[in-house]
Amino acid sequence: MDGARNGGGKPPTIRDVAARANVAFSSVSRVLSGHPDVSEKMRVRVTTAATELGYKPDFLAQSLRSGHTRTIGFALRDISNPLFANVARRCERDLRRAGYSMIITSSDGDIAAEAENLELFRERHVDAVIASLVSETAPTTLQQLEQLTVPLILLDREVPSIKASALLSDHYAGVRAAVDALLAAGHVRIALITGELDVRSTRERVRAFDDAHAAAGIPTAPDLMIFGTFDSDFAEVEVHRLLALPDPPSAILTGGVGVTSGALLALHHSGLSPETDIAVVALDEWPQFAALAPSIWSVHRDSDEMGAALAHLVLDAMGGAEPRMEITPTEFHPR
Amino acid sequence: MDGARNGGGKPPTIRDVAARANVAFSSVSRVLSGHPDVSEKMRVRVTTAATELGYKPDFLAQSLRSGHTRTIGFALRDISNPLFANVARRCERDLRRAGYSMIITSSDGDIAAEAENLELFRERHVDAVIASLVSETAPTTLQQLEQLTVPLILLDREVPSIKASALLSDHYAGVRAAVDALLAAGHVRIALITGELDVRSTRERVRAFDDAHAAAGIPTAPDLMIFGTFDSDFAEVEVHRLLALPDPPSAILTGGVGVTSGALLALHHSGLSPETDIAVVALDEWPQFAALAPSIWSVHRDSDEMGAALAHLVLDAMGGAEPRMEITPTEFHPR
Repeated sequence: MDGARNGGGKPPTIRDVAARANVAFSSVSRVLSGHPDVSEKMRVRVTTAATELGYKPDFLAQSLRSGHTRTIGFALRDISNPLFANVARRCERDLRRAGYSMIITSSDGDIAAEAENLELFRERHVDAVIASLVSETAPTTLQQLEQLTVPLILLDREVPSIKASALLSDHYAGVRAAVDALLAAGHVRIALITGELDVRSTRERVRAFDDAHAAAGIPTAPDLMIFGTFDSDFAEVEVHRLLALPDPPSAILTGGVGVTSGALLALHHSGLSPETDIAVVALDEWPQFAALAPSIWSVHRDSDEMGAALAHLVLDAMGGAEPRMEITPTEFHPR
Repeated sequence: MDGARNGGGKPPTIRDVAARANVAFSSVSRVLSGHPDVSEKMRVRVTTAATELGYKPDFLAQSLRSGHTRTIGFALRDISNPLFANVARRCERDLRRAGYSMIITSSDGDIAAEAENLELFRERHVDAVIASLVSETAPTTLQQLEQLTVPLILLDREVPSIKASALLSDHYAGVRAAVDALLAAGHVRIALITGELDVRSTRERVRAFDDAHAAAGIPTAPDLMIFGTFDSDFAEVEVHRLLALPDPPSAILTGGVGVTSGALLALHHSGLSPETDIAVVALDEWPQFAALAPSIWSVHRDSDEMGAALAHLVLDAMGGAEPRMEITPTEFHPR
């Protein structure tokens, strides 16, 4: 668009190299593609001309020949979730050090956008795909995943019909410890607010919630188990509704960064403190959480560790390893 | 890598279409590239065969022909900064609705990574670049920007030597109002901790800090003006050092999400409350800030508004508009 910017000239092409070396176009092409049937003299002649001209092979053309782009696609459910943004940051760093670039897309919690983003990765011929899916069951998502011909690494998702590696968080352990502690402290009306049941993290949290209640011989309260979205707005409305119940909960587990934010806003607007008036357990911390909310309980998972483990799974899969599952721990942090 | 996954066969090629339509390879190519010199009969014959086979033109090959990839590159300084992650989220949404995909890269505050990421965008033939640069002056960054041949949109950065549009935040207004208020409330030892002076945001914040002091006839304290990085760790160490001074500050302005987090951690570990013991003004809020720190003062800018304005600048620039500068407001939020 602004041709003057790069010094007035177009970048040199393979034809310019051929002219300068005074050899045929096809000879340059053979040398640059590493063809074995090339004399040493020809190789020197062409590479000298290419170096003198500052010729760089076109990335798209080269990728088209080799079938490799040294690029990894990372489909995030929502980039504005700081836990997952930090996973992506760390994963990108490790992949960059291994010579790969990362393309990040965000689906903003939208199933249609997710399918488009996965299709983008196929179009761009990425060498592997990491996916923190919006939905494990949406037909458009499954259709895209089925058409992948490169390794797939799922982040905290289960899609049994697709051959993929997976990095899973042990949500059960952290939530179980948290609910055990709340029940032992005398809470009998404990609320759980979180996203859809069609992602693994929600199902594992619910399983731990149920088991802890069963172990303590205390029934769960169906009116306090709320599954909707991972959005702040949703959680804010639901917490206001819970607080207005004739028999409101004395403790709330908030599943995800957005839900925690919305719940804390609702408490703040109601003049309630999570330190003295109602117990809050945030399911997921994030880099700024400890600084801003040092006294709120949480179930913690380490986003740096997750990013590093993901990069490892990606590199292994591209190296031809069989798909495998890895588990990262979660930890209950009472304060 | 897993050919069986897409139904056992390779995707159909242009040769398969030619065979099915029983026409020459070159005829298919002419029809699919929209060549004007093609009979209606030939066009119907080829497109019918292509549809029946489920043929999709290869993205790389198509881009190589057209020179357009309908992709925007967004180089972030640090994706784990939730303010900028949200800017990217909103910008991506608006660009997707206009038919563009966004590739996000994160430089993790590293100048070498920034140059690599900008080079990636050139290699991938993106149609425009948005950059929230690590540094406005690093030679490797400037060299990459000079070689861009597509529109460039800077986010809160000034690079006078490069022709670019820019979305700038009015940091001056918010910081000036905050320091005016602190000085009027009797604070005379006010600290400012923030990142490098080689980015515009820092320079504008310092200018407002200086002007407010000058207007009040109160000298700034050079030992309290600290420029280093935007990292949490850096800020944590510096705040501990400030608190140990014989004459510690009674108020602290923290420039950026990381610096705010580190400063709040240091206060927490020192047993000091930002509500009662020391005034804290966070320069930048982020989506979860209001929920977690409802009583901390801030200078706010709207990340959704910024993302939407960026998308607008990108689309205008690709439409051929002259580069232009836009300013988004900041607002002092006392609480």
